[in-house]
Amino acid sequence: MSLLETVHSPGRLRELTARELDALAEEIRAFLIDRVSASGGHLGPNLGVVELTIALHSVFDSPADRLLWDTGHQSYVHKILTGRADGFDRLRKGGGLSGYPSAAESEHDLVENSHASTALSYADGLARADAHLGTEGRATVAVIGDGAMTGGMAWEALNNIADGPDRPLVIVLNDNQRSYAPTRGGFADHLTGLREGNSGSGLFGQLGLAYIGPVDGHDIAAVQDALRRARHTGGPVVVHVVTEKGRGFPHTENNELDRGHAIRPMDPVTGLPTGRSAGPSFTSVFGREMARIAEERPDVVAITAAMLEPTGLRPMQQAFPDRVIDVGIAEQHAVTMAAGLSIGGVHPVVAIYATFVNRAFDQLLMDVALHRRAVTFVLDRSGVTGDDGPSHNGMWDMSVLQVVPGLRIAAPRDGTRLAELLAEAVAWEEGPTLVRFPKGATGEDLPAKATFAGIDVLHRSGPLDVLIVSVGALAGMALRVAETVGAHGLGATVVDPRWVTPVNPALADMARRHRLVITIEDNSRTGGVGSTVSQFLRDTGVSTPLREFGIPRRFLDHGARADVLAGCGLSVQNIARTVVEDISAAGDGTVNQAADDLDDAMVRLLKQASRGEIR
Amino acid sequence: MSLLETVHSPGRLRELTARELDALAEEIRAFLIDRVSASGGHLGPNLGVVELTIALHSVFDSPADRLLWDTGHQSYVHKILTGRADGFDRLRKGGGLSGYPSAAESEHDLVENSHASTALSYADGLARADAHLGTEGRATVAVIGDGAMTGGMAWEALNNIADGPDRPLVIVLNDNQRSYAPTRGGFADHLTGLREGNSGSGLFGQLGLAYIGPVDGHDIAAVQDALRRARHTGGPVVVHVVTEKGRGFPHTENNELDRGHAIRPMDPVTGLPTGRSAGPSFTSVFGREMARIAEERPDVVAITAAMLEPTGLRPMQQAFPDRVIDVGIAEQHAVTMAAGLSIGGVHPVVAIYATFVNRAFDQLLMDVALHRRAVTFVLDRSGVTGDDGPSHNGMWDMSVLQVVPGLRIAAPRDGTRLAELLAEAVAWEEGPTLVRFPKGATGEDLPAKATFAGIDVLHRSGPLDVLIVSVGALAGMALRVAETVGAHGLGATVVDPRWVTPVNPALADMARRHRLVITIEDNSRTGGVGSTVSQFLRDTGVSTPLREFGIPRRFLDHGARADVLAGCGLSVQNIARTVVEDISAAGDGTVNQAADDLDDAMVRLLKQASRGEIR
Repeated sequence: MSLLETVHSPGRLRELTARELDALAEEIRAFLIDRVSASGGHLGPNLGVVELTIALHSVFDSPADRLLWDTGHQSYVHKILTGRADGFDRLRKGGGLSGYPSAAESEHDLVENSHASTALSYADGLARADAHLGTEGRATVAVIGDGAMTGGMAWEALNNIADGPDRPLVIVLNDNQRSYAPTRGGFADHLTGLREGNSGSGLFGQLGLAYIGPVDGHDIAAVQDALRRARHTGGPVVVHVVTEKGRGFPHTENNELDRGHAIRPMDPVTGLPTGRSAGPSFTSVFGREMARIAEERPDVVAITAAMLEPTGLRPMQQAFPDRVIDVGIAEQHAVTMAAGLSIGGVHPVVAIYATFVNRAFDQLLMDVALHRRAVTFVLDRSGVTGDDGPSHNGMWDMSVLQVVPGLRIAAPRDGTRLAELLAEAVAWEEGPTLVRFPKGATGEDLPAKATFAGIDVLHRSGPLDVLIVSVGALAGMALRVAETVGAHGLGATVVDPRWVTPVNPALADMARRHRLVITIEDNSRTGGVGSTVSQFLRDTGVSTPLREFGIPRRFLDHGARADVLAGCGLSVQNIARTVVEDISAAGDGTVNQAADDLDDAMVRLLKQASRGEIR
Repeated sequence: MSLLETVHSPGRLRELTARELDALAEEIRAFLIDRVSASGGHLGPNLGVVELTIALHSVFDSPADRLLWDTGHQSYVHKILTGRADGFDRLRKGGGLSGYPSAAESEHDLVENSHASTALSYADGLARADAHLGTEGRATVAVIGDGAMTGGMAWEALNNIADGPDRPLVIVLNDNQRSYAPTRGGFADHLTGLREGNSGSGLFGQLGLAYIGPVDGHDIAAVQDALRRARHTGGPVVVHVVTEKGRGFPHTENNELDRGHAIRPMDPVTGLPTGRSAGPSFTSVFGREMARIAEERPDVVAITAAMLEPTGLRPMQQAFPDRVIDVGIAEQHAVTMAAGLSIGGVHPVVAIYATFVNRAFDQLLMDVALHRRAVTFVLDRSGVTGDDGPSHNGMWDMSVLQVVPGLRIAAPRDGTRLAELLAEAVAWEEGPTLVRFPKGATGEDLPAKATFAGIDVLHRSGPLDVLIVSVGALAGMALRVAETVGAHGLGATVVDPRWVTPVNPALADMARRHRLVITIEDNSRTGGVGSTVSQFLRDTGVSTPLREFGIPRRFLDHGARADVLAGCGLSVQNIARTVVEDISAAGDGTVNQAADDLDDAMVRLLKQASRGEIR
């Protein structure tokens, strides 16, 4: 029996000798490499914290003592030590283990936090709650990566933690000199100084915090010793632990790009990805187009918040190293700095995951849009991302951002449209633009049969029964809905407005001529595109009934994207059935004009489109 | 002729002697006291930067050199020196001078920034644009208050600025030891150390930034000297200037509460407010109720982000000094720390201006709502605030926050409802709640004539023509609309759902029985409450037409609140006219049932309400 098999809860660690703990570390490392190679996931960060996590769980007594991980993707070892090793067979799969801490999974997890820089704030709250309630003896420990320290809210928290010299709180700074990429900026340079032993307690000391370190994060006994000292400080204390991301596995150790930060399933021997590729991703098309645009437009620069590779900006960075700015995990700064660049005569493209733009909503609204700055935002991982779970879905972007005055939002349905709409966005100099697309492959191109006032007509058949307004990458689903309702004898028109905000006024004319309008979006139904199209139609006196398909107002568990979408009613079967029922229920009394009865420009065009005369 | 009368642009300062500059400072101080006492506005901050602003404009050559103010409320002296002294007669009034920098007003203003901690990011963007375009010789100067330094995005910016040792950028740290209240936290203590000369270049030096100071900010020659040295540094440099907020005017200098941060019109001799009071404000009712709740509920604490007095938390703080937490300007931390407090067994009430909650949208969504934490948010200054201008309106809160799963939102219409709904919010332990109300007086109480399934019926008369769904403090307007359409022979029902998110399902029954539904909200029409009520009615098969009245998708210029609302179509006259037209246009063919034809519980209740039988 391996040592690992004997560990069902962290208490077991206190029964093991130092040598056994070292052996356990090696077993855990082998386990991680085996399991995460098979499932995909955050391998590199967890290989780096094996010894640190063992030390934490041997010194502190979870769940009485509270451990927070920032970000939560470095909690795999913590999961293994808290009785969840078996769950790694279904890591990040529907019904299986979450890729982040999850209070639903274990009493050892307090929060799910895939967004960086939150743990110090949670910890300050816990420490203040203890002080308020007179609770004593329960330690609060926040493990924060140096990459997460560049996020502003970590600074806000440090400043407040320092204001409570009597509130015990252990900050473990997991210094691996990286987020995805190497950490940049003044703070990173400062940590280098601390590692080299020439800054005393440094910036933390300047803020009035106790400082212990630097400590070799792969020496369990040394970390244990530092943590024990920290525990007895009686106030806030920073333990500076130096670790090596991706340690102990050649394919992550030697990957200078990101040390195997988040891997797809791969062969653990060769390090090569397993499974076949699903064709080019939206990310790669964006990356290719940015490199092309950068070539043509010397005034264009790109900005990433510690996500050079994941956002696809690497090709541009290789061609124009000075024109891709990595600000670190600092979305607020990224956005307002972009406004400054724009005032200075540069056109910035801010590439960011949809789930992270929420960090910079105020800056997008007040700093960019209020000043009508021509900044282009590109949101990858919009809509349901699936296996990353509730905190990583980017399913609110169009609802939240459509309120921003002057912001134009495009949702490309395929790779060709991404290229076209990105070019239009970067060419627009009157104000901000935003292009959003999902995780994954672009799929086949879905060409327009006709284009009317900027709206692509993707499909036209039969009488003018249902107008399907398709938003972005769900166009394939919209087309299959049209086929399915066609099999029930109903006519359908599928259109893609390309630019979804503001509403294209030509939709009114189209909607007026159909019996039912439906909208399909990979975004919150509440305050979403459909809701605003409905408002626009009512404002313009169009009484055609409208039904929105989108994501309900709830958090979504992790699972495969298609399954999660279907769980939201975003499936061909559900949408088609609803359309057929709605139109049957309405009977013949509703507004409806067969295509043949009409003879204006739009309908002529739609008719031509349905005969395939226009391509 | 005074010296001030000879200053029409900053270039004039370079013609004056040191003695004349000192005399000019005194003239400007007298001018500020005279004008801002009359108009109201940010007096204290500007009295503190008179000499600093003179020094800045004499050393730097605006607009070729770029000056940014953080926050923008300390730009009055800058406005005076850049040819806008005459405008102070109409400061913050419709068509008059803005209370913040405004690019529309002057080439010397780059941005409007009433939200703190943005200037370093703008400046980093400008400096990077210069580097990218090869522009040389144009200085970039950001003046940032020490209170604004506690905001996380300032840290993000510092970290990035330090990463560009070759990009010239002057950071003027205006250290007056305050935001509204004295600045708190580790950074504030650190600045004290610097002021006392015992920290060298301190934290800035640790980040790799050059540091000059501390300098007496009221000694023009000393500040000029420091700025000249900074200009020639050739890289990023911090000039630490120590100033005294409210200097030179007894009523601000001796006001330990906030040094006259933002005053109402007052008598410049006595310091007493002029004009009569409009009765208790929503803020004061909130403050009173919080003190009461704190007495009853030992587990309740309150959190403010540097706004103890403006949010009304002073009475609670006086009674329970340890139970009001001021985190400084740090909204992100405030919200996630509240989640931590909740996990720790405390019920936090986060009191914040609606315009600032946008800073913490991600934290509210991911850190509080995802974990279903019972945190109560209280948004003051919701909707149109008026004289503070486009960046201070809180007109997006209900649109943006209604997407948050599980968040319940209440909009009290008067002081009594604020007390009731706040009590309900704090008693709710299943997840987060939010109570939002506007700036200003609560006005008279508007009691319900009846309550049906949690919906207050405020008015019922005539046939069931229009159902007016009134959101929050616009109830008075809704009642006058009912009267006005009544004079045109139309029946009206006015209801206030109290809790507006999620939609109260009983609205469906009510809407079904009327010919038209209108919603009135002091919030964005796009994705607003009305839009979601419409979606709910369509989802439940109610075909009564609905029209939303709210704020259009644009930024609003400053002016009196009623004028700004009227400019958005939010006036009794406009709404009543639209209702009459809509109902006339619909003719008799639409769904309509006279109250007498119906005999179910809801309608009986409405009828009783209209006969005054229920109070």
